[in-house]
Amino acid sequence: MTNHDIIVPADVPNSMEQEFINNYLLITKKRQRLFLFSCDQKIEHLNNDFYGADIHSDAMHPEHLFRIAQQGTIGALATHLGLISRYGKQYTNINYIAKLNAKTNMVPTNQSDPISRALWSIKQVINLKKECPLNICGIGFTIYFGSEYESIMLEQAAHIIYEAHQHGLITILWMYPRGKAVSNEQSVDLIASAAGIAHSLGSDFVKIKPPDATKVLTSAQLLKIVTAAAGNTNVICSGGSIMEPKLFLEKLYDQIHIGGTAGCATGRNIFQRSLPQAIFMTQAITSIVYENDDIKTVLRKYQIRS
Amino acid sequence: MTNHDIIVPADVPNSMEQEFINNYLLITKKRQRLFLFSCDQKIEHLNNDFYGADIHSDAMHPEHLFRIAQQGTIGALATHLGLISRYGKQYTNINYIAKLNAKTNMVPTNQSDPISRALWSIKQVINLKKECPLNICGIGFTIYFGSEYESIMLEQAAHIIYEAHQHGLITILWMYPRGKAVSNEQSVDLIASAAGIAHSLGSDFVKIKPPDATKVLTSAQLLKIVTAAAGNTNVICSGGSIMEPKLFLEKLYDQIHIGGTAGCATGRNIFQRSLPQAIFMTQAITSIVYENDDIKTVLRKYQIRS
Amino acid sequence: MTNHDIIVPADVPNSMEQEFINNYLLITKKRQRLFLFSCDQKIEHLNNDFYGADIHSDAMHPEHLFRIAQQGTIGALATHLGLISRYGKQYTNINYIAKLNAKTNMVPTNQSDPISRALWSIKQVINLKKECPLNICGIGFTIYFGSEYESIMLEQAAHIIYEAHQHGLITILWMYPRGKAVSNEQSVDLIASAAGIAHSLGSDFVKIKPPDATKVLTSAQLLKIVTAAAGNTNVICSGGSIMEPKLFLEKLYDQIHIGGTAGCATGRNIFQRSLPQAIFMTQAITSIVYENDDIKTVLRKYQIRS
Amino acid sequence: MTNHDIIVPADVPNSMEQEFINNYLLITKKRQRLFLFSCDQKIEHLNNDFYGADIHSDAMHPEHLFRIAQQGTIGALATHLGLISRYGKQYTNINYIAKLNAKTNMVPTNQSDPISRALWSIKQVINLKKECPLNICGIGFTIYFGSEYESIMLEQAAHIIYEAHQHGLITILWMYPRGKAVSNEQSVDLIASAAGIAHSLGSDFVKIKPPDATKVLTSAQLLKIVTAAAGNTNVICSGGSIMEPKLFLEKLYDQIHIGGTAGCATGRNIFQRSLPQAIFMTQAITSIVYENDDIKTVLRKYQIRS
Amino acid sequence: MTNHDIIVPADVPNSMEQEFINNYLLITKKRQRLFLFSCDQKIEHLNNDFYGADIHSDAMHPEHLFRIAQQGTIGALATHLGLISRYGKQYTNINYIAKLNAKTNMVPTNQSDPISRALWSIKQVINLKKECPLNICGIGFTIYFGSEYESIMLEQAAHIIYEAHQHGLITILWMYPRGKAVSNEQSVDLIASAAGIAHSLGSDFVKIKPPDATKVLTSAQLLKIVTAAAGNTNVICSGGSIMEPKLFLEKLYDQIHIGGTAGCATGRNIFQRSLPQAIFMTQAITSIVYENDDIKTVLRKYQIRS
Repeated sequence: MTNHDIIVPADVPNSMEQEFINNYLLITKKRQRLFLFSCDQKIEHLNNDFYGADIHSDAMHPEHLFRIAQQGTIGALATHLGLISRYGKQYTNINYIAKLNAKTNMVPTNQSDPISRALWSIKQVINLKKECPLNICGIGFTIYFGSEYESIMLEQAAHIIYEAHQHGLITILWMYPRGKAVSNEQSVDLIASAAGIAHSLGSDFVKIKPPDATKVLTSAQLLKIVTAAAGNTNVICSGGSIMEPKLFLEKLYDQIHIGGTAGCATGRNIFQRSLPQAIFMTQAITSIVYENDDIKTVLRKYQIRS
Repeated sequence: MTNHDIIVPADVPNSMEQEFINNYLLITKKRQRLFLFSCDQKIEHLNNDFYGADIHSDAMHPEHLFRIAQQGTIGALATHLGLISRYGKQYTNINYIAKLNAKTNMVPTNQSDPISRALWSIKQVINLKKECPLNICGIGFTIYFGSEYESIMLEQAAHIIYEAHQHGLITILWMYPRGKAVSNEQSVDLIASAAGIAHSLGSDFVKIKPPDATKVLTSAQLLKIVTAAAGNTNVICSGGSIMEPKLFLEKLYDQIHIGGTAGCATGRNIFQRSLPQAIFMTQAITSIVYENDDIKTVLRKYQIRS
Repeated sequence: MTNHDIIVPADVPNSMEQEFINNYLLITKKRQRLFLFSCDQKIEHLNNDFYGADIHSDAMHPEHLFRIAQQGTIGALATHLGLISRYGKQYTNINYIAKLNAKTNMVPTNQSDPISRALWSIKQVINLKKECPLNICGIGFTIYFGSEYESIMLEQAAHIIYEAHQHGLITILWMYPRGKAVSNEQSVDLIASAAGIAHSLGSDFVKIKPPDATKVLTSAQLLKIVTAAAGNTNVICSGGSIMEPKLFLEKLYDQIHIGGTAGCATGRNIFQRSLPQAIFMTQAITSIVYENDDIKTVLRKYQIRS
Repeated sequence: MTNHDIIVPADVPNSMEQEFINNYLLITKKRQRLFLFSCDQKIEHLNNDFYGADIHSDAMHPEHLFRIAQQGTIGALATHLGLISRYGKQYTNINYIAKLNAKTNMVPTNQSDPISRALWSIKQVINLKKECPLNICGIGFTIYFGSEYESIMLEQAAHIIYEAHQHGLITILWMYPRGKAVSNEQSVDLIASAAGIAHSLGSDFVKIKPPDATKVLTSAQLLKIVTAAAGNTNVICSGGSIMEPKLFLEKLYDQIHIGGTAGCATGRNIFQRSLPQAIFMTQAITSIVYENDDIKTVLRKYQIRS
Repeated sequence: MTNHDIIVPADVPNSMEQEFINNYLLITKKRQRLFLFSCDQKIEHLNNDFYGADIHSDAMHPEHLFRIAQQGTIGALATHLGLISRYGKQYTNINYIAKLNAKTNMVPTNQSDPISRALWSIKQVINLKKECPLNICGIGFTIYFGSEYESIMLEQAAHIIYEAHQHGLITILWMYPRGKAVSNEQSVDLIASAAGIAHSLGSDFVKIKPPDATKVLTSAQLLKIVTAAAGNTNVICSGGSIMEPKLFLEKLYDQIHIGGTAGCATGRNIFQRSLPQAIFMTQAITSIVYENDDIKTVLRKYQIRS
C-alpha cells in the first residue's frame, strides 16, 4: 500500500494531509484494514458486559481493557475519552480512537427514542493528544438514525467529522437504526442505508451490525450491498455477544472475503475472556485482518476447534 | 445575457458581487437557467433510490453520481457536503451545490413532524472551497413548512442564505409543505406559498414539486401562479421518481415554456440508469434547459420515442 | 414637532441619539404619527393574501409591494429582511422596517401553540443598511403571548429591541394573544395587556388588532384604555382584511381621533388593489395620518363614497 | 450600621466591593432594611392590576409608577428593564432594581408548567447604568421551583447572580413554588424552602409570599422558620392584592418585628391608589421599614384607622 | 503515600499536575481517603432536612454547616457555589468542593424524568478561588442516568470534568439511577454501573448509594463489585438519613474495609445534630476514614454505645 491508495477527504487541509495519512497507516498497519478493539460498553451497556455468569472475572476491572490493548495485537482501542484520560499516562503506546458520545441502554425505545450527545469536542481530543502526549489517531461517534432525535446526532456527527479531518484525525461512525419507527434493525436495506448515510456525512469508516441473512443469501453475501453503498468509506462489522471462537473467526473471515468489509470492531468476544485468552483472541483476529491468512491457516495456527 | 440581467441581492456585499455573478454564470451557463443534478437521496431516501428491481446496478456505487456529473453536461451537482469531501479531490472540475441539511424519511409524519437541521456551516463550505480548491458555487437547504418545527428550519435557512450571500454563493431552497397539518402537499396554493416563502427568505432559487393538475388546468399551467409568487426568485421543479424519458422531457419542456420555470432539479431520472444512459439523459436535459431547443428537436436529436 | 417631543429611550446610547431621532422623523414625517405599509403576509398568510377571487392580479407579483411603496405616500414599508434584499438594490429610496421573525399559519393552535423565531439579527440589519446602502429605519418583531412558547419570543424581542436601540433603530412589536389558553383574541383586556407588555419590553411602537366593541362602547372608545396602557409607546392598529375604502378610512380616523392611536399598519387594504388604486389608497391614508385632515375632507378630497 | 455589618458575598471581586456596598446602602438607606416598590405586573399580571373597578384611574398610565417612585419615599423601584428604558431619561434620580425575566399569567399550570426566561443580561444592565447614567442598584429574577422547567430558571438565576455580583449589583430573587407538582404554594415548608434555595444560589435578598397561618401559629410567627432558613440572605414579603391600609401596615410590622424579615416588596397596595394616596402610603411604609417607628406611632402619625 | 500513588488523569495538563496533587492531598489528608461533608440538601431536599421533629434546631441556620466544617475534622465541605459565596469571606480556611448543579425533589418521576443542569461554570469556580481567595479543591456534579434527560447531564458532566482537570481541580460525581425506566435504584447492578459510568467520564471520585443487600450478600460485600467496576476512580458512599451513631460508624467501617470504598459522603448524620454533637461525629468519622482505627477502637475512643 502506498499513500496514493489512501482516500484523503477534501476537508483534510493540505497541511494536515500527512498527519491524516500517518494516523490512517497506524491503525490500518499499512494494510487498508482495521481491527478496532471496541470498548465503549461501560456506558452503553452498563456493567452487564463486564460482570456475570459467563464473563471471566478479569473483565470486572476496567484496566483489563488497557492490558489487552497493550499486550495484544489490535489496530486501535476505541473507548470514551474520559476512560482514556484515567489510564492514558500509564498506557501511552496504545493507538486510541476516542469515542465522543454516549448513552445508557436504560430508557426503552417505546418510552422515548434514543439520543446520544457529544460529551467531548475535537478541541479537547487534540489538547489531550498533544499535552500528554497520547496516540489518539481518530474519533468515534454513534448515530441512531430513524430516532425522533436523529437530527441532533446528524448535526453533531457532521461537525465532529469536519473538525476531526481539519486536524488530520480518522473518523468512525457507529450507525444504528433505532427508534419507534424502526421494526427491523438488521434488515439489509437499513444496514446499507446506514453505510450510505455515514458515507454522505464524510466518514472514513462506518461500524455497522452485520445484516440478517435472508432465505436465499447469507449475511456475508448481503454485506456486498452494504459495502457498495458505503462507496469509499470503509465498512467494519461489530462483533456482538460472545460466541465460540471458531464461529466468530469464520464469520469475520467471510465478512471480509465475501462481504468486502475492511475489518472488524470487536469487544465482548475479546474482553469477556481472561487476559491470556483475550490476548490470544486478538492474535487470531490480527491473523485474519492484517496478515490476510486464510481461515484454515488461522484456525490451525491458533489450534482452534469447535 | 449581461451582468445587468442578474439579480444581485442586497445582502451580497459590493466586494463579493463579482464572485456572486461568476457563480451564477457558472451554474446557469449564461442562459438564466439551471439544470441541477440533485443527489441528496442517500440520506433523504436511504438506500432505496440506489438499489432495487428497476434501478441499474451502476447506481449501487456512490461514485456513479460523480462520474455522471463529470462526464455528463449538468449545471451543478447538488449533494451533501460530506459526500463532496469524499470525492472532491478526484472530481475537482464539477460545479457543486453543497446541500447543508439532511434527515432520513424513517419517522412518519403521524409519529412526529419533520425537522432537518443544518449539518454544515457556510464557514465550512468556504474553507472547503478555498482549501481544496473546489468549485462550490452555492448551497442548498430544505425547509418543511407547516411542520411544528418549521421555526427552526426557517431560522437556519435565513441565516444560511444571508451568510452564503455574504460570500457570494448562490442559494437554493428545497421547499416542501409537510406535517400533520398538511393534507395536500402538492396543491397549487401550497406550492405557490412555498415559492413565496423562499422569496421572502431572500433565496436565489427555489426547488419545488410541480403542483397537482386540477380539473381545468394542467400542472404546467398552474406553475404560472407559482412562478409569479416567486417574484425574482427562480423556480425549478424536482423530477420525482423515474419515468419514461419522452414523458419526462415533455413535462420539463412544459414547466419551462408554459409554467415559466427556470430549469429543473433532476436526480432519479438520471442516476437510476446506467452510466451511458445517464450521460445521454443529461445531454437531452441540457438541450432543453440550456440550448433552448424545442421539444420536437430534442426528441429527434436524441431519438427518443415513447 | 421638535426633537424634544420625541421619546428617546434610555437604551439608545448618546452617540446614537441623533440617528434614532432621524429614523423617527423619517417614518413619522415629523408629525408623531406612523403610516406603516405592513407586508409580511407572504410567510405569515402564505399565498392566500396575494391570489384569489377578490384580489387584483397585480398582487400576484411580489414587486407590486415595492412599486406601491415607491410611488405611493407611505411612512415605511414593513417586510421580511429577505424580501428587502431581493429588491433593495432597485428600490433604494423606500423607508424600510425590517420584519425579523416569521411563521406560517399552517399549524392550528389546537395542534401546537404558536412560535415565531428571529430569522435575522440586528447585526445583519445594520450591515445591510450600511453596505447597500438602504434606508432601514427600524425593525419589527411578532410576539404571540399566552402561547406555551411565549418565553422564547419575549426573550428574543427584548434582546432585539435593546440591540436595535443601541444602533438607533426604531422598534415595532406585533403583539397578538394566541394559543390554547386564549379564548378571545380581541377582548379589550388582552389588547390593553398587549400594549402594556410591548411598553414593558421598551418598544417605541406596538401594532395591535383593534379591540372588539362591547355592548356599550365602540372599538375606538375602548382603544383609549389601550393607548393609556401603552404609556409613551405609540399604538398603531392593524387593518385586517380588505373592506370598503369609506368604512376603512372612517375606522382609521376614529382610531386616531377617539382612541388616541398614533397611526396605522395597513397591508391588504392597499396591496390587494391594482397599482393605481393602491397608490390612491396610500394617499387617502396619508391625508388622515400625516396631514391630519378631518374625515369629511378626506372623503371629499378623494371622492370616496360608500 | 457600618460597612462591617454588610455581608459582601465572595463572588463580588475586591475591586467591586465598594460599589456593592454603595448600592446596598442606597437601597437600604443604611438601615439593613429594604422597601422595594415592586412593579413588574404589566407583564406578569397583564393589564388587570392597572385597570378595573377598584383601581384608581391614575394607575392606567404606566408613568404613575415613576411619579410615585420619584415623589414618594421608597428604597428602590423594581420593574422590567424595558420599562426603565422608556422613562429613565426623565426619571434619573430613582433607585432602580432591574427585573430581568418575565412571563404572563395566561397559560394555566394544568396546561403547562411555568417558565420565565431572562430577557436581559447583566451586560445590558451595566451598559444602561453607565451610559444614561441611571441609578440601577441591583437586579431581580423570578424562579418557579417545582416546575418541570425549574432547571432552566435555576441555571439562569445562578449565572445572573454571579454576574451581578461581579459588577457590584445587589440581587433579589422572587421565589415561588409553582407547577403541577405543587399543591399548596404558601405552606411554610415550601416558603422556607424558597428562602433556602435563594440562599444556596447566593442571592442577597429573597422575595417570598408570607406563609399561610396554621391552627396554632400566625403567618408572622411562621416567618421565623423562613428567615432562619434564609441564613444571611435578607427576606422580604410580597404584599399581594390591595387591602385596608391599617391591616396592611400591621401585617408588615409583624412580618418585620415578629418574623424577622428585612422589609417588604409592595406594589398593588401602593399604585392602585391615586398619586397623593400612593405617596402617602410610601411614607407610612417608610416609617415602619426605615424609621423603625412602632406600629401605634405609624398609625397615629398617618392618621390611619380601620 | 507519595505523589506516585496518586492517579493524575491525562486531561490534567503538565503545568497543573502539582496543583491537582496539592488539591488531592488536601482533601485526602495524604491517606488516599476522603471524608466529604456533603451539604447540598437545601436545594435537593428543600428545607425538610433542616427543620423537623427529629432535627436539632441548630440545623435551621445554614451557617451551622460552616461552623461544623470549621470546628470539626472533615476532609472537605461540598455545597453549592452560591452558598459558599455567602459565607466564604468569613470561612476562608475550609476545604471546599463546589457543587455545580442542582434540582429540587418536587417533580415526581412519574410526572417527568429528572434533569439537573449546571448552574455554575469552572471558570466561575476558578475566579472565586483566586479572587477571594478560597480553598476550593474540587467540584461536584450529579447525574441521574436512566432519565430521559441523561444525555444533557452526561454532556455537562464530561465538559465540567475536563475543564476542572484543566485547572487542577478534583472531580466528584454524584451518580444516581433515576427515572421512569428505573425500578430498583439500589440494585448492585445499577450501582456498579453508576461507578463504571463515572469512571468512563474520567472522574476522580464517584459518590453512590450503597447497594441493597441480597439474600446471600451484605451491602458491604456487594460493594466489592462496585469498587472493581470503578477502576481507579475512588468510590465513596452517601450516608442517607440519620441513624444511630454506632450503626452508622460500623456500616461505614465495613464499606471501607470489606467493600473497598475510599471514604464517605456524609451530611444528615452530622448536621441534623447540635453543633457539639456534630463536631464529635466528624471526629469519629475521621478516626475511621483518615486515622484508620479499627471499629472497636473508634467506638471505645468516642464511647459510642447502641
